[in-house]
Amino acid sequence: MEEKNMQEVMEKAQVLIEALPYIQRFNRKIIVVKYGGSAMIDEELKKHVIQDVTLLKLVGFKPIIVHGGGKEISRWVEKTGMQPEFVNGLRKTDAATMEIAEMVLNKVNKSLVQMVEELGVNAIGISGKDGGLLRVEKKYSDGQDIGYVGEITEVNPKILEDLLERDFLPIVCPIGMDANYETYNINADDAACAIAQAVQAEKLAFLTDIEGVYKDPADKSTLISELTVSEARELIADGFIGGGMLPKLNNCMEAIEKGVSRVHILDGRIAHCLLLEIFTNKGIGTAILDDKEKKFNHE
Amino acid sequence: MEEKNMQEVMEKAQVLIEALPYIQRFNRKIIVVKYGGSAMIDEELKKHVIQDVTLLKLVGFKPIIVHGGGKEISRWVEKTGMQPEFVNGLRKTDAATMEIAEMVLNKVNKSLVQMVEELGVNAIGISGKDGGLLRVEKKYSDGQDIGYVGEITEVNPKILEDLLERDFLPIVCPIGMDANYETYNINADDAACAIAQAVQAEKLAFLTDIEGVYKDPADKSTLISELTVSEARELIADGFIGGGMLPKLNNCMEAIEKGVSRVHILDGRIAHCLLLEIFTNKGIGTAILDDKEKKFNHE
Amino acid sequence: MEEKNMQEVMEKAQVLIEALPYIQRFNRKIIVVKYGGSAMIDEELKKHVIQDVTLLKLVGFKPIIVHGGGKEISRWVEKTGMQPEFVNGLRKTDAATMEIAEMVLNKVNKSLVQMVEELGVNAIGISGKDGGLLRVEKKYSDGQDIGYVGEITEVNPKILEDLLERDFLPIVCPIGMDANYETYNINADDAACAIAQAVQAEKLAFLTDIEGVYKDPADKSTLISELTVSEARELIADGFIGGGMLPKLNNCMEAIEKGVSRVHILDGRIAHCLLLEIFTNKGIGTAILDDKEKKFNHE
Amino acid sequence: MEEKNMQEVMEKAQVLIEALPYIQRFNRKIIVVKYGGSAMIDEELKKHVIQDVTLLKLVGFKPIIVHGGGKEISRWVEKTGMQPEFVNGLRKTDAATMEIAEMVLNKVNKSLVQMVEELGVNAIGISGKDGGLLRVEKKYSDGQDIGYVGEITEVNPKILEDLLERDFLPIVCPIGMDANYETYNINADDAACAIAQAVQAEKLAFLTDIEGVYKDPADKSTLISELTVSEARELIADGFIGGGMLPKLNNCMEAIEKGVSRVHILDGRIAHCLLLEIFTNKGIGTAILDDKEKKFNHE
Amino acid sequence: MEEKNMQEVMEKAQVLIEALPYIQRFNRKIIVVKYGGSAMIDEELKKHVIQDVTLLKLVGFKPIIVHGGGKEISRWVEKTGMQPEFVNGLRKTDAATMEIAEMVLNKVNKSLVQMVEELGVNAIGISGKDGGLLRVEKKYSDGQDIGYVGEITEVNPKILEDLLERDFLPIVCPIGMDANYETYNINADDAACAIAQAVQAEKLAFLTDIEGVYKDPADKSTLISELTVSEARELIADGFIGGGMLPKLNNCMEAIEKGVSRVHILDGRIAHCLLLEIFTNKGIGTAILDDKEKKFNHE
Amino acid sequence: MEEKNMQEVMEKAQVLIEALPYIQRFNRKIIVVKYGGSAMIDEELKKHVIQDVTLLKLVGFKPIIVHGGGKEISRWVEKTGMQPEFVNGLRKTDAATMEIAEMVLNKVNKSLVQMVEELGVNAIGISGKDGGLLRVEKKYSDGQDIGYVGEITEVNPKILEDLLERDFLPIVCPIGMDANYETYNINADDAACAIAQAVQAEKLAFLTDIEGVYKDPADKSTLISELTVSEARELIADGFIGGGMLPKLNNCMEAIEKGVSRVHILDGRIAHCLLLEIFTNKGIGTAILDDKEKKFNHE
Repeated sequence: MEEKNMQEVMEKAQVLIEALPYIQRFNRKIIVVKYGGSAMIDEELKKHVIQDVTLLKLVGFKPIIVHGGGKEISRWVEKTGMQPEFVNGLRKTDAATMEIAEMVLNKVNKSLVQMVEELGVNAIGISGKDGGLLRVEKKYSDGQDIGYVGEITEVNPKILEDLLERDFLPIVCPIGMDANYETYNINADDAACAIAQAVQAEKLAFLTDIEGVYKDPADKSTLISELTVSEARELIADGFIGGGMLPKLNNCMEAIEKGVSRVHILDGRIAHCLLLEIFTNKGIGTAILDDKEKKFNHE
Repeated sequence: MEEKNMQEVMEKAQVLIEALPYIQRFNRKIIVVKYGGSAMIDEELKKHVIQDVTLLKLVGFKPIIVHGGGKEISRWVEKTGMQPEFVNGLRKTDAATMEIAEMVLNKVNKSLVQMVEELGVNAIGISGKDGGLLRVEKKYSDGQDIGYVGEITEVNPKILEDLLERDFLPIVCPIGMDANYETYNINADDAACAIAQAVQAEKLAFLTDIEGVYKDPADKSTLISELTVSEARELIADGFIGGGMLPKLNNCMEAIEKGVSRVHILDGRIAHCLLLEIFTNKGIGTAILDDKEKKFNHE
Repeated sequence: MEEKNMQEVMEKAQVLIEALPYIQRFNRKIIVVKYGGSAMIDEELKKHVIQDVTLLKLVGFKPIIVHGGGKEISRWVEKTGMQPEFVNGLRKTDAATMEIAEMVLNKVNKSLVQMVEELGVNAIGISGKDGGLLRVEKKYSDGQDIGYVGEITEVNPKILEDLLERDFLPIVCPIGMDANYETYNINADDAACAIAQAVQAEKLAFLTDIEGVYKDPADKSTLISELTVSEARELIADGFIGGGMLPKLNNCMEAIEKGVSRVHILDGRIAHCLLLEIFTNKGIGTAILDDKEKKFNHE
Repeated sequence: MEEKNMQEVMEKAQVLIEALPYIQRFNRKIIVVKYGGSAMIDEELKKHVIQDVTLLKLVGFKPIIVHGGGKEISRWVEKTGMQPEFVNGLRKTDAATMEIAEMVLNKVNKSLVQMVEELGVNAIGISGKDGGLLRVEKKYSDGQDIGYVGEITEVNPKILEDLLERDFLPIVCPIGMDANYETYNINADDAACAIAQAVQAEKLAFLTDIEGVYKDPADKSTLISELTVSEARELIADGFIGGGMLPKLNNCMEAIEKGVSRVHILDGRIAHCLLLEIFTNKGIGTAILDDKEKKFNHE
Repeated sequence: MEEKNMQEVMEKAQVLIEALPYIQRFNRKIIVVKYGGSAMIDEELKKHVIQDVTLLKLVGFKPIIVHGGGKEISRWVEKTGMQPEFVNGLRKTDAATMEIAEMVLNKVNKSLVQMVEELGVNAIGISGKDGGLLRVEKKYSDGQDIGYVGEITEVNPKILEDLLERDFLPIVCPIGMDANYETYNINADDAACAIAQAVQAEKLAFLTDIEGVYKDPADKSTLISELTVSEARELIADGFIGGGMLPKLNNCMEAIEKGVSRVHILDGRIAHCLLLEIFTNKGIGTAILDDKEKKFNHE
Repeated sequence: MEEKNMQEVMEKAQVLIEALPYIQRFNRKIIVVKYGGSAMIDEELKKHVIQDVTLLKLVGFKPIIVHGGGKEISRWVEKTGMQPEFVNGLRKTDAATMEIAEMVLNKVNKSLVQMVEELGVNAIGISGKDGGLLRVEKKYSDGQDIGYVGEITEVNPKILEDLLERDFLPIVCPIGMDANYETYNINADDAACAIAQAVQAEKLAFLTDIEGVYKDPADKSTLISELTVSEARELIADGFIGGGMLPKLNNCMEAIEKGVSRVHILDGRIAHCLLLEIFTNKGIGTAILDDKEKKFNHE
């Protein structure tokens, strides 16, 4: 082998060796990945996310993907001649919209199964109906009826435990049933969070379209790499957090309080952000953690 | 208790006792049910089929449902402004049609899951993509390219075995992937037949819109209740069998030859036809069986 | 099929479907059946009881039969030239009587095994000696020595758990050993009750020769279909309960307090009373239940 | 410790150490013991046999006891005013006699269970009815109907395998059922032999009332300690073997041919004959073995 | 068989039967044997110890051997031109000495494996490094640095549990690692004691070069056969115990307090002392037991 | 994160993703690594080898290390005043040398255990004595007695299977026992080869001090990256192979013929050569493979 080639392969080996302690730390641990945003639209990013999760599976972790389908749903709603409607950021979901939403989410679901299968790993795509995974009640938006939008009341994780034990990579779309076994749409962030709690995940990672939490969103240099629950609460109280970040952060804090060890807000627009977060000592995005947990220096 | 009531409950007990030898015979055996036709459209029949399969599950059988979605697919194809097209009875399936077919089949799939869950049994809805269950190659109709219509080349039953072992009732929609992991539509009869062979089912039951096989279709009194593979072959050779029955009968015969013990063509328009076939000594429809098997008198 | 036949089979299917929720409720649950009285003498009733229990086994319950042998023991005692003797309803059991009682109980035991085996279910007949199941101490009747009559001091349920796990239907005759490994006769009601507690049975059903508990035994219209432990205690305090019913009711109340969910006093003279109680919504006899348990309307 | 005591305990240790290779050789192996004759009557011998079998169980073997009840049956037949009757050494067994025989055999069976339990080992007493262990057809004696005497047609060893796996010591009494599930008496030697074959026992030991096989029964010095099947056949052909020994020897030879490694005819009148045979290098009685097996020097 | 021979074999059987209750009592129980002293040097005694432990294994116990290597280490230290050095009875262990000590201990370890394997039992020789079994910190002797001498801080018994479950006889040499994964020598008594506690052994037996604990070491007639922890404490307080016995007795008391049921100080110079202690009712040496435990009369 | 950093972490992710198909290919497969030569002496290389093997373990492979101890043995032989002696490349091994060899090999063995444990993986160090793994007979060199040098006659892989199943990384030193349970030294290449065959390893990798097999050892450019068994045989026949490479190549060919899928001769002097071989598409050294196997292009 030539000198230059040798140098190159050496560096490769070094990267693998560097991954060793991380592989050890998360061995047989459950990692829930909320998959959404740009990373679900850009074909290249999509491929990278699936590669990352598949790799996590192969080196001994137990990943679960929870995905949304946002823009694709709107596209199909329009295709059938209806107009998408939102109330406080929640999709107004009449019966016809619900039917389309379920069809689209399942289509997206199976396309992810397909990509994982292509990489040689056994995947199974389920919705919150299968095995009674997600049970909901009707959610109102400031008292207003917005149709088949569900608030999770119960997670029955047996189906996920069964599938993980049989070595499948479960891919979940956020649809649930209420007490009368009617179909409801669920916010994917909420579903990921509730599932992570129910299976006592080691990590919950949100792939988002932002770099992380900023002290001052206007100033990119104020990205916070680690945030305890108390600190997050202070930031919120002080009015630093707003928009779509507020419910997401609330979700993160609840997950931590219900036993998930660490929650990450990652920038899904960065290729392989998941892998980078887990396998290198260069932290990416913002990690939310328990107050008691000794901070682990990321930078 | 009053005399009349007592008489009534006695008769009920008698029916349950009558079911005893049938429950014994099929205990822990796999029964594949091809679910289609009117029984999928009429809401009352639908409820009965699901009750029947759920009961089979509860008394110790291992049912697997394989379903189609025929008319519903056409309805959605039209809804999006396209025109359904058929070649020799096979749906011409371009990419746009395939996308809709997959969405509709998955929607139907999850609605069946929902109904089974409502009856208190754990169901899981999968397609042939999950766990790589159904692998196909492109199917041509008399040499003509009809798009994403697949011919099954391989069944990987591990996912079904895993789910049955974990006590789920699997519900399968007939979509598969080719060698390049592209999505294909599969004829539901073919899928049911291939799956029954792969899991070595004890029984394969087709819910159809006919009463069974007739010697003379014009004469209702010529319904055949039992048919060996040889007899079926003769009937075909003699030109008695035609139309949609021919490929179905071929499927049945192949299943028998590949190890399925008994195949039934049932009239799905009769309420609880499945239960009646299995639990009473009044045979329904036509049973196809091996030449060697001693005929078991049905009427 | 003719119209009339069709009508008939439809009704049959309906009965099976009606059984569905009951099958679900008791799936994998243990049901202890105290088998005695007329139902053990009348050949027709005997056949029905065995059919019922076998059906329960086949549809997924875990029944255990505990039986007595009363009249048959007296018959054999007389046959060998002795005179049966009773003290306060308890058989005075000298060594010779004990020997005969054990022989007769084991004979009865194996004849039940035989009947269950004939229906195609694996049965195993044991006494309280096998696996050290029932350990006793000498029981005195108002201070009087009545010989080898034992009071249960310990139940070792491992043998029953092993047999249930291996899918046997255990049939138990009420004989036990004291601390010196001497043989003792045990009241079958006591044995059934102690076993139901030890295996944490879901149900304990007594097949008796009465219709159930009456408020006023003289007035058949006062049959009580549900009775909480408190209500039973009141009835006793008020002197409504007497005769053989008193110890039986005490047994029932103790069983409920030790964790058995529901105890039934059934009329064994009604064919298939067990099946009717469990599979139809026509309650039979009297159910004893915990005060806390919400009454479940039977009529 | 005094010198004399020390000497004594040393010798004890030596005996235990001597047992070591034998314990190893039969570890986890099945040994069927046909228990009958004087060893079942003399209380002291009885205790020794049970001690021996219990010890075998505790040091890792898997013993199964098969026992008769001969003289005790006759005693009870007479007790109920009947006269025992024999045809060619087989008990003429009408229905009444069969009923008594079954009661007596089960009584003996449970008394053995009792003795083993007293030594702290889990025993379970079954008959050939339990789990359908022994299936028979009517046996005729030179064409003469002798009632409920059965010839074994099928052994279903699952129940024994289940019980051994759950660490029980099974004790079997030789009663079986015919195709109509009628009760039959079986010769205990035949039952032991058929069971040993069905469970592929390593050893089958008959406890008898003779010292072993003699070349010349009149001359005690002609006791044969090892006999191959061929040699046994020659002895029979030459007319050396007669009386009750002939069927027993035929049984032994059949067992060897059906896969039992070694059959022993032991003198049950010698205390601990079983232990001596297995744990010391002083062979006792006569061992029957395969022609191919290299003779293992016993004296 | 001759009269005299028969007499002899009878006595043998008697010894085996006498062992029965002891075999039962310790069935599937863990027994840790600290093997050291003369019993490790004298070839004949060595053979006896290995025979004893192998027998214990074969009759169903779960023995673990922990051994030292004392004199052999000194011999090799001298062989390489160094001088063994001791501080308060602890070997001063510089790096070079540690290297030799580890080599010698492993050699001894594998020679014991060899002897056990020769008797047909699966043995595996490990040190406290394997599976991270023994973790230590540096031990100082009255504040003085004596090199690589370790004090046990943590026992990780998983490796022993795994090996016992897979039916191996584990043989352990007392070497451990500190927090920096450096190699340390450990006192074998300490190791045996810590291991017995960690695996919750039923018995811990020290093979020593003394007869047991004496009230007055000068008077052989004052050997104590049973000693409760309180009594031991009194003896120590009263100054009766000194020399090497003091730390050993402290170890014994600690083991009892941490859950080991019974600790024995045996005279390893007596052949088969282990077997005699366990299988006969002639106690040997001194047994240390809990105050609460009712004394079990040994003499 | 800065641009430059981002670039760097991206490249890292790329390397991990590149490893994906390799991780998949060898998942749950056994890889035997013969560890020797410079890689055992140079501390840096040693660390790399251990890191590599540990990583293989963590990502789901089942590695087994087989190691020698060559130079270290000679060093200790000299240290005790003896002179190492070789006959045809085999160490003349008298009893004293054997004793030292065993001590040294075990010391090396445990130091490797230590290094693996330090990386957080459970290791266990065994020799061929443990569990009777390696049985040998005396090996002669051209008819000359060279002492305790053994030729493997039998491999008993149960101990390795048990340890792999319990998730240990087994490290084996090449010492075995002959039929009389005497200790023998074994060539480490032979041991690795015999073990790989016995456990049906997927890969056997030799870490050597050469770059691989050359067509012309004098011309570095003639390194052969893939060699079928037939080609190897030709090379040997044509006299291209000589020295220490000849027996090694014979070993490789035998392994292939006995079922090992692929054998690698790697240059142990290259850091992480093992990782590079397995995880990158830059082949290193020479791979020996079956004639039938389609060549897999490495460069």
